[in-house]
Amino acid sequence: MTTTSPPVDIRDWIRDIPDFPKPGVLFKDITPLLSDPTAFSACIDQLETQYKGRGIDVIAAAEARGFIFGAPLALRLGAGFVPIRKPGKLPYATIAQEYSLEYGNDRLEVHADALAPGKKVLLIDDVLATGGTMRACRDLVRSTGAELVACAFVIELAFLGGRERLDSCDVFCLVTY
Amino acid sequence: MTTTSPPVDIRDWIRDIPDFPKPGVLFKDITPLLSDPTAFSACIDQLETQYKGRGIDVIAAAEARGFIFGAPLALRLGAGFVPIRKPGKLPYATIAQEYSLEYGNDRLEVHADALAPGKKVLLIDDVLATGGTMRACRDLVRSTGAELVACAFVIELAFLGGRERLDSCDVFCLVTY
Repeated sequence: MTTTSPPVDIRDWIRDIPDFPKPGVLFKDITPLLSDPTAFSACIDQLETQYKGRGIDVIAAAEARGFIFGAPLALRLGAGFVPIRKPGKLPYATIAQEYSLEYGNDRLEVHADALAPGKKVLLIDDVLATGGTMRACRDLVRSTGAELVACAFVIELAFLGGRERLDSCDVFCLVTY
Repeated sequence: MTTTSPPVDIRDWIRDIPDFPKPGVLFKDITPLLSDPTAFSACIDQLETQYKGRGIDVIAAAEARGFIFGAPLALRLGAGFVPIRKPGKLPYATIAQEYSLEYGNDRLEVHADALAPGKKVLLIDDVLATGGTMRACRDLVRSTGAELVACAFVIELAFLGGRERLDSCDVFCLVTY
């Protein structure tokens, strides 16, 4: 459902938080966007406009903030929603993807029956920073044989080079800093 | 937006997983519901029907599965969405609520500026089990002076007595086992 409400500039609803999660980092806080129904709806409208008519079967998103955008977008597009989770959270048989963090490794899992060859998948998350988490999601989706249509984000922090780490993917961001 | 699609029985889309997360527990897996666009949409329709016209200002939900239902419901009701998170995840000033787990304690946080006296708040989560997490959310919402309209769930596991732990709350569940 698209509406005729006046244009919303997503940036007006993103708050800068200095020194979070550690000194020297300027964190982009999306909670003001979420708390305003018009702004949040406009954000999902813009994502819907970008991907409607593209035959997306599944929206997949990593916990936790990815769920906030992925679930509404799936409903708007008439697609299924598939959660990608930290180890041990999904109850059924899973497939996993390891990835590197600043210190050590982590792992993401998806249900083994959630994706399959022939499925057109859109990955979504709130922020594209270094791209490490989305890269693991990309590899996880592709390992199932599903077709990864694109990786979409609300916010891109371009100076962190995440887009380059997602080479071979179509990357779309609503706003770029 | 309500649709005229044929009635969906939510139970048809919930999968039993024995011995998860530990032996003897029969886990109710909602991922089949999420992966079917008609069923997931019907679930949000039913929650929307229950709460439209009630003047809900804010849907609040605890991470991570609560986000999957809370965000779409907020958009349907024209309400804001407020995430309740584990410690250290929210970047701005927070207020916190401690609660007891089987072994030890945990804590939930919400942004200090997210709720306020006069706001009508609906809490939502996927499953009402023992009610411990929702009880912490209830106390967190009330500590801000906001009005807690109800606690809503997709699934109630009635034999665990969660409803009794949420005394003084209006509790609503789409399906009860």
